Amino acid sequence: MTAIRRCEQNPLIIPSQVKPSREDFKVEGVFNCGVTKYQGEVILLCRVAESVHNTEEDKVVIPMVKKIDGVETIVVETISKSEHPDYDFSDSRSVWTNGENGPRKILYLTSLSHFRIARSKDGVNFTISETPDIFPEESESWGIEDPRITFINGAYYITYTSVSCYGASTSLIVTKDFVEYDRKGIIFAAENKDVTIFPEKIGDSYYALNRPVPMAIGNPDMWIAKSPDLLHWGNQKHFLGVSEESSWINGRIGGGAVPIKTEKGWLVVYHAADRDNRYCLGALLLDFNDPTKILANTKHPILEPEAIYETEGFFGNVVFTCGVLLEEETLIIYYGAADDKICRADVALCDVFDDLESVES
Amino acid sequence: MTAIRRCEQNPLIIPSQVKPSREDFKVEGVFNCGVTKYQGEVILLCRVAESVHNTEEDKVVIPMVKKIDGVETIVVETISKSEHPDYDFSDSRSVWTNGENGPRKILYLTSLSHFRIARSKDGVNFTISETPDIFPEESESWGIEDPRITFINGAYYITYTSVSCYGASTSLIVTKDFVEYDRKGIIFAAENKDVTIFPEKIGDSYYALNRPVPMAIGNPDMWIAKSPDLLHWGNQKHFLGVSEESSWINGRIGGGAVPIKTEKGWLVVYHAADRDNRYCLGALLLDFNDPTKILANTKHPILEPEAIYETEGFFGNVVFTCGVLLEEETLIIYYGAADDKICRADVALCDVFDDLESVES
Repeated sequence: MTAIRRCEQNPLIIPSQVKPSREDFKVEGVFNCGVTKYQGEVILLCRVAESVHNTEEDKVVIPMVKKIDGVETIVVETISKSEHPDYDFSDSRSVWTNGENGPRKILYLTSLSHFRIARSKDGVNFTISETPDIFPEESESWGIEDPRITFINGAYYITYTSVSCYGASTSLIVTKDFVEYDRKGIIFAAENKDVTIFPEKIGDSYYALNRPVPMAIGNPDMWIAKSPDLLHWGNQKHFLGVSEESSWINGRIGGGAVPIKTEKGWLVVYHAADRDNRYCLGALLLDFNDPTKILANTKHPILEPEAIYETEGFFGNVVFTCGVLLEEETLIIYYGAADDKICRADVALCDVFDDLESVES
Repeated sequence: MTAIRRCEQNPLIIPSQVKPSREDFKVEGVFNCGVTKYQGEVILLCRVAESVHNTEEDKVVIPMVKKIDGVETIVVETISKSEHPDYDFSDSRSVWTNGENGPRKILYLTSLSHFRIARSKDGVNFTISETPDIFPEESESWGIEDPRITFINGAYYITYTSVSCYGASTSLIVTKDFVEYDRKGIIFAAENKDVTIFPEKIGDSYYALNRPVPMAIGNPDMWIAKSPDLLHWGNQKHFLGVSEESSWINGRIGGGAVPIKTEKGWLVVYHAADRDNRYCLGALLLDFNDPTKILANTKHPILEPEAIYETEGFFGNVVFTCGVLLEEETLIIYYGAADDKICRADVALCDVFDDLESVES
């Protein structure tokens, strides 16, 4: 097991520290944050998930963004549990069909997510914005989730999951100052999440890990794509799939942190979940000049949900990262715990290298 | 109902006219052909689906492409039906999980598809290649399907479904002469099919219709993407979805023929299927300068499976087009019938326009 050290102050940010964006909203979670440094500070671009205050046991209340008379507006829909025996309300995050008449599908999300910036000089004590920094637009009517930040040539490229009734896609926003945001639209159509862009051109191309979820054939696996301009992507290749060999990766696998450059190659901290939706983190080492080549992988998780703040929360048994920092040979992993808090764990780079086992080509 | 005229010689190409690529193979279908003109001839790039000769009632035999000692080789796997009560063998085209332990998934395809060129001077009498013109590679181990051909600046851009155990993706091949083929890899990762590229730049971008199939949220709907170079795609937008309003489009909807330019706008012949997998054709009219704008749609199918060669075959009740020609104000639709034959139907452009009903924006 990797000598990973959870931060003593964990969790670093919790829902009660976040002011709701509306009076009738309740912050369910602050988690899965993109990470970068800007003007000497650590910036976490936090996913904030809000639900609607609700005291009626039989009701589920659904917040969405809609355009009404040309103005983006939050609309609240109410569903009666007793009137819908055909729905499955067992997942705190979403309402599903029960799968009796066709495939199991998500019908509603119980929360609406937006992004808020948390800033820190020491990487431990954070101050989070009082109001949303990036809010979903009409085409993201079910919310925006899980941002990753890649710094390239003076600009911050933010990939994130944009959700609507048409599916969970990946969109791109570019900013230079975390004040003005330039929306570039959907770069990977539904269903595709967990997109991390490498921080520089490799050969003639930019690269991005992505995680499509095919319906009829195939699993929720990682793929890798190439781009000349960061806006348009092609040359997709299957990269790393779920596996029956290890129980912690038999459900789904996807990009986690933005890849970072090390002396041995590109280091990728990724997530994997088992069939019971228990999410862990693993690490990959990729060839410097050809990131489609996996040199080494960790056989066991480098972080798995064990602390109480990881096993219990809005959705328990989850550790999920969208970004890491490398400081003086230490990997600083910021991660969402149990889908409602932000935590930090540090690990010496040499310890991660020790855990990486060569992958035979 | 549109005044569409089925060709008297239908079906134009049937499996018995196609020589199998191996002695132990049987041609199950020749269908879903890309269409273009080259050197004064009509070229159909036909999907040829082959199965392995099999006389044992209890067995299902699966052909696949694998790389063995660096050489692409056809490998045949045999499955015993009686040993797999957990499999669903009811679909002639594929073996499915029965859905009792998790989502219903395709485990195997019963046939392996490749492409073969059929040529004709009159557009009715075709001569088909004796051997495959384009054969699946290792990364397309389950076959290549449903090609569409777009002629742009002296080259033919062929989009097609490339299938492997990782899913059904869309790949691109470029040719100038239908002899040498330049493989450009996967442009849309799994699951995404039915990609049709518009035949010219519109504004600054190329456009393509595509049909992702998201797992958790959303339906098998049409999307539209943009590209600067035909190789890399972005700016995805949801375009046209399945609908409960008409029973013929409540299952799935996807691009059909490559869009063609008419005096009124871009004309798109698309396919839609109901929940029983009955496939029909409809037509759309799109804005010349902004093909994301749908000006008009057909309320009823312009072609639906009615003739015996459309209702009966390898998979019955299917009409499916990958390409049309426009000749002297007549739309010539080449289409796959019942997943095993190629047919032709002609319709006056003015009759299609009559059927198109304005879509309120």
